[in-house]
Amino acid sequence: MTQPTINADRLWDAHMRMAEIGPTPEGGSCRLALTPEDAQARALLLDWSKPLGLHVELDAIGNMYLRRDGSDPAAPSIAFGSHLDTVPTGGRFDGVSGVLVGLEVLRALDEAGIRTRAPLELVNWTNEEGSRFRPAMMGSRVFAGDLPLATALATTDDRGISVAEALRDSGQAGPLPPAPRNWAAWLELHIEQGPVMEATNTDIGIVTGTMHARYFQLVVTGEPSHVGPTSMDRRRDSLAAAAEVILAVERIALAAEPGGRASATWIENFPNARGNVANITRLHCDVRHEDAGTAIRMDTALRDELAAIASRRKLRIDVDPYANFGPTRFDARLGALLRQKAEARQLSTRDMIAAAGHDSVLIALLCPSAMLFVPSVDGITHNPKEYSTREQVARGAEVLLDAVLELAAG
Amino acid sequence: MTQPTINADRLWDAHMRMAEIGPTPEGGSCRLALTPEDAQARALLLDWSKPLGLHVELDAIGNMYLRRDGSDPAAPSIAFGSHLDTVPTGGRFDGVSGVLVGLEVLRALDEAGIRTRAPLELVNWTNEEGSRFRPAMMGSRVFAGDLPLATALATTDDRGISVAEALRDSGQAGPLPPAPRNWAAWLELHIEQGPVMEATNTDIGIVTGTMHARYFQLVVTGEPSHVGPTSMDRRRDSLAAAAEVILAVERIALAAEPGGRASATWIENFPNARGNVANITRLHCDVRHEDAGTAIRMDTALRDELAAIASRRKLRIDVDPYANFGPTRFDARLGALLRQKAEARQLSTRDMIAAAGHDSVLIALLCPSAMLFVPSVDGITHNPKEYSTREQVARGAEVLLDAVLELAAG
Repeated sequence: MTQPTINADRLWDAHMRMAEIGPTPEGGSCRLALTPEDAQARALLLDWSKPLGLHVELDAIGNMYLRRDGSDPAAPSIAFGSHLDTVPTGGRFDGVSGVLVGLEVLRALDEAGIRTRAPLELVNWTNEEGSRFRPAMMGSRVFAGDLPLATALATTDDRGISVAEALRDSGQAGPLPPAPRNWAAWLELHIEQGPVMEATNTDIGIVTGTMHARYFQLVVTGEPSHVGPTSMDRRRDSLAAAAEVILAVERIALAAEPGGRASATWIENFPNARGNVANITRLHCDVRHEDAGTAIRMDTALRDELAAIASRRKLRIDVDPYANFGPTRFDARLGALLRQKAEARQLSTRDMIAAAGHDSVLIALLCPSAMLFVPSVDGITHNPKEYSTREQVARGAEVLLDAVLELAAG
Repeated sequence: MTQPTINADRLWDAHMRMAEIGPTPEGGSCRLALTPEDAQARALLLDWSKPLGLHVELDAIGNMYLRRDGSDPAAPSIAFGSHLDTVPTGGRFDGVSGVLVGLEVLRALDEAGIRTRAPLELVNWTNEEGSRFRPAMMGSRVFAGDLPLATALATTDDRGISVAEALRDSGQAGPLPPAPRNWAAWLELHIEQGPVMEATNTDIGIVTGTMHARYFQLVVTGEPSHVGPTSMDRRRDSLAAAAEVILAVERIALAAEPGGRASATWIENFPNARGNVANITRLHCDVRHEDAGTAIRMDTALRDELAAIASRRKLRIDVDPYANFGPTRFDARLGALLRQKAEARQLSTRDMIAAAGHDSVLIALLCPSAMLFVPSVDGITHNPKEYSTREQVARGAEVLLDAVLELAAG
């Protein structure tokens, strides 16, 4: 038995190899949840974990649990991981790093011949991104009881394919009922996805909590007409109304600066025909803020704007506020442990709030949970240019390893 | 030989029967160009024309010519017709009426045993609407030499299917090279698609010309990023920029009242994912005005706005001004003939300008051409509620019949 060591090159190579699945022309990855690409990524992870002698379990929403036995079979597990699915313009680190540093921790322990007291579990959550199937963080939501399994399975993508069908077709529907497991702690490493750590020369971000986010699906219903003979005053143009909504969403974020974020991201327009004033436009947007009260006021402001736009343009806007997340406070004791492990390695730390949704938001409802960030070059993310250096990722893995070792011994 | 008579019921029944092809839940029709529904509509027209002993020709862009011999084989033809394709939210009259009154004229002549001196040609133009393949008025553009056949054939729809493939798959690719024919005159009956005739109690609109319209395809290129961690000032949101464009288009029309029309109708957003600030948004819009100078000033104003939006938001907007139509002045002698025939039947008339594009805009480049309008109830069009009464359509057919008889005798 020797001291376990993170192999920075092996960890980096795993990132580059994983990025070859669903490659995009600009050097990023596109692995939408439960597509063949996602299934390939999962298969590669299983392939890599084979020499480690892990117990693999798959639940009915496709969450993967890779369990390494401990010396005390009765001890609750120390769990960690993230997600392998990406957005369409995905980079090579978002989610992926959290899974691959988990794998690297298991590889380092295996190499050093270390058997921890508590079992360890590496997890890959299904559909964290929510790009194909909403809501985001679907696998962890079902796991935590935040979303009924049947509802998730019935959800369809823009082509009408259900999660149940996608799970079946990609071979990711497992026998296990998605439900809380016997975990003593949950840890997730993630890239920052923002510019703060780089700007402040921070090695390790200690994520103390998350923003509060509120998601909306909107339907604007106007009246079809012809772009030529229909004078402007006779129109009930759902696309023009949607344009006002998109800009209202942006204004609401700007009014909630600093820290306010609001985005309209997804649009579907009908009939989307060049001779026709549009009559049905669907829109997805969200508002978020670190302060839940401010986020709720942003929500109210958005609804006021929607009502004003609908009334002024004499059309209908239906709102489906289908999901929220946060605000989350992660476990302070685990945060302190991560900070202590980073400092022991002479790494600089900084307390941070996550602006994005993460599976840890859901797991924090079930057991002590925490997250750590590694820097993102230029703060760029959900973009093929997304980048963290070999050293930045390796430092994160080292802190995770040290924390896992202490937790699994305790 | 008896006096030829328009059979209002037969004409109405033809409308209702045609509307059953590509029916929509609200009672309208959806027959996008060169779909199976469009092919069915064409087959029905051929079926109806069979007892009339017409010569049927199909050209390489799918335009249909149904020719009735005259007594003088050397005389140039009198041609008339319109189009059977519709927009996705189509009604039962736009385009269809122009073809079916043409058929009714031929049926009335056949019934009365009348052989005109000049041959007559009933035409169904391909893809007038431009909903599936742009530009609109594709068949008549190719026919008139305004658009090269090869360019039209290579054009693809939103699914990537080319016009050439759609022509082949729908069985509408004919052997004839699309080119001007030996026509003495062209007439097109159409519904008004606006409220003016109803409001002024006009039976027959004499269309003296068309607006000038300018079509644009735009591409907004920003930068992908994450909706959570990306602060508002770091975003290059192509969808928010497109929203500004949509509202600028609307403002430009309002500033050009009365008579100004401008519309953003079609949008495609990438990655269109709920976790992503959009980075590529495509938009289609047009500006139009009766006064060509004003339309050109609207175009300039739009380009100024695009430059300002791109510069303010630090992203790129590429503009493809891919097509124009009009301003058209229809043949004054033909207009006078239509007016005289309407008045002879005690019908009220009114000179009008067409705000929509019509195939006649192209045919007017080749031979004396004119259009007549029949009223649209409530001015509603490109909408399942589009309606003209049995009598309104029949009156239009009577005026067309009288004009065709005089032209074909002369």
